[in-house]
Amino acid sequence: MGRRTLSGLSGPWREFSLIAALQRRFASAGPGDCLGLGDDAAAYRPRRGRLELVTCDALVENIHWKSRWCGPRALGIRAAAVNLSDIAAMGGEPERGFLILALPRASTQAFAWEIAAGVASELRRFRARLAGGDTVASAGPVMVALALQGTVPGRQLLTRSGARPGDRILVTGFLGDAAAGRRVLDAPARAWPGKKYLRGRFLRPQPRIRAARVLAQSGWVSAMLDLSDGLAGDLRRLAQASGVGARVEGGRLPISAPARVLAQRLRVPAEDLALRGGEDYELLFTAPARRIRELQSLLARRARIRATEVGEILPLAAGLCLRTADGRRRPWPQGWEHHGA
Amino acid sequence: MGRRTLSGLSGPWREFSLIAALQRRFASAGPGDCLGLGDDAAAYRPRRGRLELVTCDALVENIHWKSRWCGPRALGIRAAAVNLSDIAAMGGEPERGFLILALPRASTQAFAWEIAAGVASELRRFRARLAGGDTVASAGPVMVALALQGTVPGRQLLTRSGARPGDRILVTGFLGDAAAGRRVLDAPARAWPGKKYLRGRFLRPQPRIRAARVLAQSGWVSAMLDLSDGLAGDLRRLAQASGVGARVEGGRLPISAPARVLAQRLRVPAEDLALRGGEDYELLFTAPARRIRELQSLLARRARIRATEVGEILPLAAGLCLRTADGRRRPWPQGWEHHGA
Repeated sequence: MGRRTLSGLSGPWREFSLIAALQRRFASAGPGDCLGLGDDAAAYRPRRGRLELVTCDALVENIHWKSRWCGPRALGIRAAAVNLSDIAAMGGEPERGFLILALPRASTQAFAWEIAAGVASELRRFRARLAGGDTVASAGPVMVALALQGTVPGRQLLTRSGARPGDRILVTGFLGDAAAGRRVLDAPARAWPGKKYLRGRFLRPQPRIRAARVLAQSGWVSAMLDLSDGLAGDLRRLAQASGVGARVEGGRLPISAPARVLAQRLRVPAEDLALRGGEDYELLFTAPARRIRELQSLLARRARIRATEVGEILPLAAGLCLRTADGRRRPWPQGWEHHGA
Repeated sequence: MGRRTLSGLSGPWREFSLIAALQRRFASAGPGDCLGLGDDAAAYRPRRGRLELVTCDALVENIHWKSRWCGPRALGIRAAAVNLSDIAAMGGEPERGFLILALPRASTQAFAWEIAAGVASELRRFRARLAGGDTVASAGPVMVALALQGTVPGRQLLTRSGARPGDRILVTGFLGDAAAGRRVLDAPARAWPGKKYLRGRFLRPQPRIRAARVLAQSGWVSAMLDLSDGLAGDLRRLAQASGVGARVEGGRLPISAPARVLAQRLRVPAEDLALRGGEDYELLFTAPARRIRELQSLLARRARIRATEVGEILPLAAGLCLRTADGRRRPWPQGWEHHGA
C-alpha cells in the first residue's frame, strides 16, 4: 500500500479502486451468506428460531475522537466495539458489519485500509465479519459509521423494558474509566498514575458479548442495556422504558483505583465520573434479588467479569434517587453529553 | 419545531433530544418487529423462506450534492432512493432503514427533521420504514448515510453473476438523464429545454422496486444490477462477475429528448451521457433472447416501465465492445467518477 492519496489515483476521485481493494482483502463469506462483498447488497439466509438485530453508530473526528489520540487501526477497532456493545446489550451475537467511511481527499489509501482492518479484526474477535460498505470522499472530518447485524435466539432477547420493582441493578466491570481515559488523552503530557490503563479503557472498550450471552441464556435478567452515556442517563432510560423508579447507592459504584486517583487530582468526585462519564460500554442489567449471587458467579466463571450490585428498582412513583455512602440523598445527576472539540 | 440550532439546546451538544424527537415522530413498528426505535438495536423476526438483504450508501455535501441544489427533504428522499435501488437490484423488497445523520453544529432541528421526514416518506412509498439510527454532530459537511434491510424470496435472488453468452442486455427507462440533470443544477440560470424534467431525474431517482420484483418473479432474468455509475462501468462489473464479454449497440441506447438536446448544446455525444453519466438508478439486466418480448410486456403492464434491449452477452474472450449506430467499433468507455465540488 503506497502513500498515494485517495484523490490522486486517477481522475478526481477513484473510490472504486479503494472499495474493490478493501473488498478483496476483507471480504469473507460466512455461514448462511449467499453473496460475499461486491454485489448491490449483502444477501444471507437468516438463522432459524432467531430474531434479527440491527444497530448503527458513527464516530466523527473532533467530536468522538481526535486524530492525535489514536491511529486509524485503533479508530476502526473502537468503531466496531461501540456497535458490538449494542448487539451485546440485546443479548445477541454479532454476525455482519457494513462500514461507511467518509474520508477527506487528502487521506491516504493506507489510512482507509487501516480503519477497515481495525473494524474487521475487532469483528473477527467476536466471530463476526465485514460484509459490505461504502467509501465516500468528504470535504470534512473523517467519519466512520458502522451498521452491525446480529441475531439472538427468540426467547433470549433482552430489552430495556422488563425491570420490576424489587429487582436489583447491576453493572459489569468498572465505571468512569473511559471518562478518566479521555481526560488523560486530552492532557497526554501529565504524569497520571494508571495513565496507560485509563487510556486503553477509553480507546479500546471491551464489548461484553460473552457476558451478555451468559446473562441472556440464564433467563433471569429482566432488562439490559449498554452504558454508552453514563449510568445516570442510561438507568433513567431503562427506568422510563420499564415504567419504574430506581435507587442507586453511590458508595457501591465500582470505580477502579486509577480512576479514583485521577478524580482526586482533578478535584471531581469519583462518583461523578462513574455516573456521568459515559463511553464505558459496560452492561447495565436488572434481575430478581434471589438470582444475583448465581448471576455474579456465572459471569465470573464463564465470562471472567465482575458484576456489582449498585441499587434497586423501585415503583414508578418513587422516581430516581441517588444515596451517597453516608446515607444522604442527592438529586439525580444529569446525563452525559458529547464534549465536542 | 423552532429555529434553535442543534448545538444551542442545552449544553454543548444535545443529540439525545433530537434523536428522541425523531424517533417519536418516525418510529413505526411493522410486521415482525419485536421492538420499535429506542432500544440498543432494532429486533425483528425474519420472514420464513426469505433471504435477508442489507445495503448501505452515504451522501456527502459538496461531493454527492450541493446545498443550493435542493432542500433537506429532497436530500432525505434521494438518500432513501439510492439505497432502495440497491435492494431492487437484488430483486428484493425493502423493509427497514437505519439513518445516520452527521450534521454541522449550526444546523437547525428543522433541517435534521426534514431530512428524516424525506427518508421516512420515500421508504413508506415502498412499504418500508425507518427503524433506527444515530445522529451525530460534525465539524464538517452534512452527511446522510442509510443502511437498508430488505428480503427476497429465496429462489428469486438476482445477482450480477448469472449472465450467459447469448443473453440479451436490457435497461429500464432512459439513460443519461441524471447526468444531464446534474449539469442543469450546476448552471441553473441557463434556459435549458426540459430543465425541470432533467433536474427531477437527478434529484429524485425512481427506485425500480416494482419492476425488479416483476423481473425476479419471472424466473427468466440471469443477472441484474442497478445503474449507479453509468452503463459502461456497471456492465463491466456485471460481465466480470459473470465471467463473460458483452457488446453494446450505441444506437439503441434509450436517451430522452431533453437529454439529447442538452448534449447537443454542450457539444458532447448523447451516448457519452448515457454510457458514463451515472446516477440514473435504472435496472440493468440480462435474459435469454427468447424471453425478451415477454419480459418487456410484463414490465410495461405490471410496472409501467419500458425496457430497452441495448446489446448482447458474448463469451469472455470477446471482451467488452461498443458498436456505434453506423456499425463502427469504439473502445469501451471509462466508468463514471464522482465529480466533487
